[in-house]
Formats: sequence, C-alpha cells, structure tokens
Amino acid sequence: MKMAFPDSVSSLVSNIAPVDKSLLVPAQAHLDDLTKPVGSLGRLEELAAQLYCIQGGKTPIEAYPARIYTVAADHGVVAEGVSPYPQEVTRQMVYNFLNNGAGINVLCETAGIEQFVVDAACLGPDFEPHPRLIRGKIAQGSANIAKGPAMSARQCEAALLLGARLAEEAAAAGCRSVGTGEMGIGNTTPSTALYCAYLGLEPEAMTGPGAGLDKGGVAHKTAVIKTALAVNSGAVASGDAFSILAALGGYEIACLAGLILGAARQRLLVMVDGFISTAACLAAVRIEPKAAGYCLFAHASAEKAHKELLQRMGMRPLLDLGLRLGEGTGAALALYLSHSAAQIFNKMATFSGAGVSR
Amino acid sequence: MKMAFPDSVSSLVSNIAPVDKSLLVPAQAHLDDLTKPVGSLGRLEELAAQLYCIQGGKTPIEAYPARIYTVAADHGVVAEGVSPYPQEVTRQMVYNFLNNGAGINVLCETAGIEQFVVDAACLGPDFEPHPRLIRGKIAQGSANIAKGPAMSARQCEAALLLGARLAEEAAAAGCRSVGTGEMGIGNTTPSTALYCAYLGLEPEAMTGPGAGLDKGGVAHKTAVIKTALAVNSGAVASGDAFSILAALGGYEIACLAGLILGAARQRLLVMVDGFISTAACLAAVRIEPKAAGYCLFAHASAEKAHKELLQRMGMRPLLDLGLRLGEGTGAALALYLSHSAAQIFNKMATFSGAGVSR
Repeated sequence: MKMAFPDSVSSLVSNIAPVDKSLLVPAQAHLDDLTKPVGSLGRLEELAAQLYCIQGGKTPIEAYPARIYTVAADHGVVAEGVSPYPQEVTRQMVYNFLNNGAGINVLCETAGIEQFVVDAACLGPDFEPHPRLIRGKIAQGSANIAKGPAMSARQCEAALLLGARLAEEAAAAGCRSVGTGEMGIGNTTPSTALYCAYLGLEPEAMTGPGAGLDKGGVAHKTAVIKTALAVNSGAVASGDAFSILAALGGYEIACLAGLILGAARQRLLVMVDGFISTAACLAAVRIEPKAAGYCLFAHASAEKAHKELLQRMGMRPLLDLGLRLGEGTGAALALYLSHSAAQIFNKMATFSGAGVSR
Repeated sequence: MKMAFPDSVSSLVSNIAPVDKSLLVPAQAHLDDLTKPVGSLGRLEELAAQLYCIQGGKTPIEAYPARIYTVAADHGVVAEGVSPYPQEVTRQMVYNFLNNGAGINVLCETAGIEQFVVDAACLGPDFEPHPRLIRGKIAQGSANIAKGPAMSARQCEAALLLGARLAEEAAAAGCRSVGTGEMGIGNTTPSTALYCAYLGLEPEAMTGPGAGLDKGGVAHKTAVIKTALAVNSGAVASGDAFSILAALGGYEIACLAGLILGAARQRLLVMVDGFISTAACLAAVRIEPKAAGYCLFAHASAEKAHKELLQRMGMRPLLDLGLRLGEGTGAALALYLSHSAAQIFNKMATFSGAGVSR
C-alpha cells in the first residue's frame, strides 16, 4: 500500500480498514472442498480462513515471510523491587539476541522466521549498529509508574510511531505476518497495571510471579501496582486508551501497540505473543478496534491470569504449552502453525481433483 | 542397535529397554543453565528432557529426521453402517497420499518430515509399487467385529510385526522419531471398542461421530460397539492385551501398535497422533508397559472422549487444535514442536557463556 508514513497516532489509525469477514464464506467453501471431512482440521481451518480474509480473498494465501520484532526497554518501576532479576539483564539480553543465543533466536531459526531486535528505551548508551537491530531509543527507560506517568504523551506517541515504522518496514520487505516480542526486566508490572486499568480489574486477582517472584514478592508487586493505579488515577478515570497507555505502560509495550496498529494498516497478520504482548494488543485495539481482526493470539502464557484475560477479551489462544518467556517465543511457534494452515489451504487436493468420494 | 528382526510378539517386546528417567536430572540442569527464567519454556523443556532420556544422555539431542507412517486398512464392521463415508474412500485416500494431495502430505512437507503409506489390509488388489508405499497387505480388511473377532491371532501378530518392521526401517534410515498415522473408513468403531475393553468403559459414554455421523448415527454406532463387545466377550474377559487387540482392533491399529513397540525397541521417540493412534498405543503399552516412556501424545482430538481417555491414561496432549482428521496430521505438527524443543536444548546460550546475570 502506498501511504505516507504516519506522523501522528491519528494519522496512523485513520487508514486501518476492517477485515472483510464476508470472505469467510468463500474461504470455508474452499476448505470444505479439500479431501478431508468438513471441519476436520479445526483451528488450522480457522487460521487459513482468517488469513484469506486479511489478504482480501487473493490466493495463494501466505503467512510467510514472517518477521518477529523483539522490542526491548527498561522500566523505572524496577526501583520498587518488582523483579527477581537485576535491571541490567534487559541490556545483556539484547546482546544475547544479537548473538543468536536466546530462545527466540532458536525458535525463529527453526521456523524460518526473521528476527529483529528493537531498542525502544534501554538504559545506557546506544548499541553499536547491527543488521538485525533497530536503534530507536526514545528515553533511558520509562519513569516509575508508582510515582507518576511512565511516559509523556509525546514520548508515548513516539513509541507508537516507532512500532508503526517496524510494520511499514516489514511490509516493504514483503512480509505477510509480524509477530510481537519483548524484553524488559519488570514489564509484567506495567502490563498488569494496564489490564487493570482497561478492564476494570483488581490487582490482587491479576498479579503473578513474572520471571519468578515468590509469594511475598507477588504481594509486594500487587501493592506497587495498586499504588501506580492510584498515582495515575486521572488517566485511568479518563478512560482514554492512549492516556492510559502513556501513564501505565512502557516503551516496548507502546511500541508493540504501534506495531499492531501499523500491521493492521498494512493488512499483515499479527501474531500476538504472551502476557505483555497481549497488554500491548489490548491498548492497540482500545485505540482502534478495527485492528482486532488482524490479530491472533499465539498461546496461553503460564503467567497468572493470562488465560482469563484472553477469555475476557473474547480471544482463544492457539497453544497452551506453559510458556512464560516472552521475547516472541510463543509467536514463533504459532506463526509456524499459521504457515502450515496456509499451506493446507493452498496445496491440498480437492475431492473432484483427487477422485475421492464424498 | 544390532538385533535380529523379531519373528514373534514375544521376541519383539523382549528387547525393549525402559527409558532411564534418572537422566531427567542432568537434562533439567542443562535446561536451567540456558538464558531464560527457570522453567519458562514449559512443555518444550519437558519434550527436550524426555528426548534426552530416550537418547541415553547423548548430545546433541535430535527429534529429526522424523518419519510418519500412515497405515491404511479396511474394516468389516463398515457393513453395519458405522461411517458416513463409503468404504472405497480408504483406497482412494491411499492414492491421494501417494499423489501428495492429502492433509498429511502438506503438513509433513511443511515440517520437513518424511511420509510413508502402508497398505496393511486395504480391500482390493495390491497397489502398484511406489517409493513411499509399503505393500504389506495381510488381508482383505478385517472381519466384522459385530459378528466375531476382527483378526485371527496369527493375522494380528503379522500386523504387529509389520509395524515393527516399519520402525526397524526408520531406525536403519537414521530417523530419531516416528509418528503414527492411519486411514481406514470406519476405524473409530474398533478404536472405541478397544478403549471400552481395555479401560472397562461403557460405549454410551465413549462413542463419537467419527468422520461426521449425526445423532442417530452415533446411537447406532454405539449399539454396534456394544454388540462387538458382547460377541467378543471371551477375549474381553480374558484381559489379555493381545487377544483383545485381535478381537476388536483392525489391521492398521495392530500395525501401529507394532510400530510403537518396534520404535521403543529402537529407542525412537514415538509421536502418537489422535483417537485411533491412541487406541493403538493403549494396546501397545498393555502388551509391554515399558514402551510408554517413548511415547508422546500429539494432540487432543475433537473426537468425543479423546481428552478424557488421555487423562485416564495419565497423558497430556501437546496440542488442542480441534483436529479430527487422523492420517498423522496432529503428529506432524507435534513432531515439529519436538524438533523445536531439541534445538532449544542444543543451541541456546548459557548464562555464563552469554554474560547474562542470573
């Protein structure tokens, strides 16, 4: 699509077209003509049909080439002691991603998916250039949400537009899907705060151990999230999706929300990873509900409450493998399923073509 | 392993070694040293650890090369009207498999898995030779289980040994995993009868629509299964695993049971597909319980009762995608997960190697 690159959130969302669900009828008609009992490939058929709709009824449908962006940022709220890992791990993991040593690298390589790393707001100096690194540092981490807003409106918009640029680049490179990934020590805390703010939930029911807190740690994290919601009660009370994201989110979360909106604008399938990515997706669809039709949910995270949150959002995850690593690892596995579903749609024989009786 | 090819079921099972579960400790120690929070890759870690145990603690661990055998056979019980599809579809689908038009072909090609087709007992003449076809026809379909035993003891043993030969060939070709697949119009009926016989369950609770029966069709199928259990009550009452398989099974089911036993003998991982394959696996582990350690369950079939049956057997399926096609389609997807898990185990960086703080 030829469109000027958006210079504001309103221009970003103004070109998102709804997915044409009327195309589900011809998609299912084709699937029902393939040599198998009707509906017997279950969710692979649903995946293929959604892809057909997203791609406007053109065939062959394609989930690949696919690209995962692992967006990294630091969080001021780590000062409150909400993570068992030291904050420098965010930066160390960026190096690990660039050196192909992380889980997401292995799963992307295995699945034939490109992986890019994004510095949205890591603490410390800019990273050296690297062919798979997008140097988009907006700030030295977010501010502490237990003391005020995570980002200013301007910073949050910059993060959304950074994400939109990633989608634009993926589309320009011929990608048909993007997957969301993240790395940010402490980032289950802002994610949980966002869920509570958007969905009107209580932190007690929603707060989990993240990368490995014990019971006392979870109780403390719950208290920090309650404080963050109180300190940012003006934004929460406004009900405004963007203001809530700026107040309680983080740079990788806002960047992923922008990636999702930008991907919808480019008619790409979006594979949403786990707990943090789903919070970014919730922000994105609250900003522009039409984006929802482009999204699929990769897996039910082992992080407490993720399954219930997906259910509240009306979404069914594809996988349930007890993953809670983030980085985009669940998205890598689920993008492979989407690719398989597309191949089923494109390559299976029909009853008449194969001479099989119905 | 250099072992004479088994010439009887007793020689087949005599060389099955138990999986050494004490190796779970070093497997988990390695997984915990990889750059991720402990346990955060969930069931991928379990998969990798099981593979490490099956492969005797040698590294790298490998799920690939992998091969799926789609075993085809006909069933005399189709005369009772238990399937909505005509019986000739078994044979037509063999041609479809050989022409690469079926779901299993597409999913194996996508996952990088070899697929072979086995004629264990299809009606009609022998198929022409084909590089991916094993011509192992033992009979012109099974006998009608509503009127007597499906197979004689000798025929059932021949089917088990055919399956064992498939495992032998896969091991000789360097495979590290095999997946089970099947095609046989009517084969949910003998499978359900086997579950009832082995697990002491009532057909009313276990009988499902198979390839697409309506409510009346399911009621009729239930009655046919009750009759089959009554007609073969001697075998059922004996409690002998082999006798029950011969009385109520079918050639593809017995062949898959042999494949599972043969794979265990060769220390291969076995990915068990859906409803029918799980019945074959139940027969195999009743014949030789040590085979269970080599088996993984690919998915929860949409066929009624499969989830509950897996739970009764103490097994957790990897995927739950509403599949009910058979052929090995769920196994193809799940073997890809096993391959991904092996890559995680082999390729991820360690904390010390990557300079990441714990």
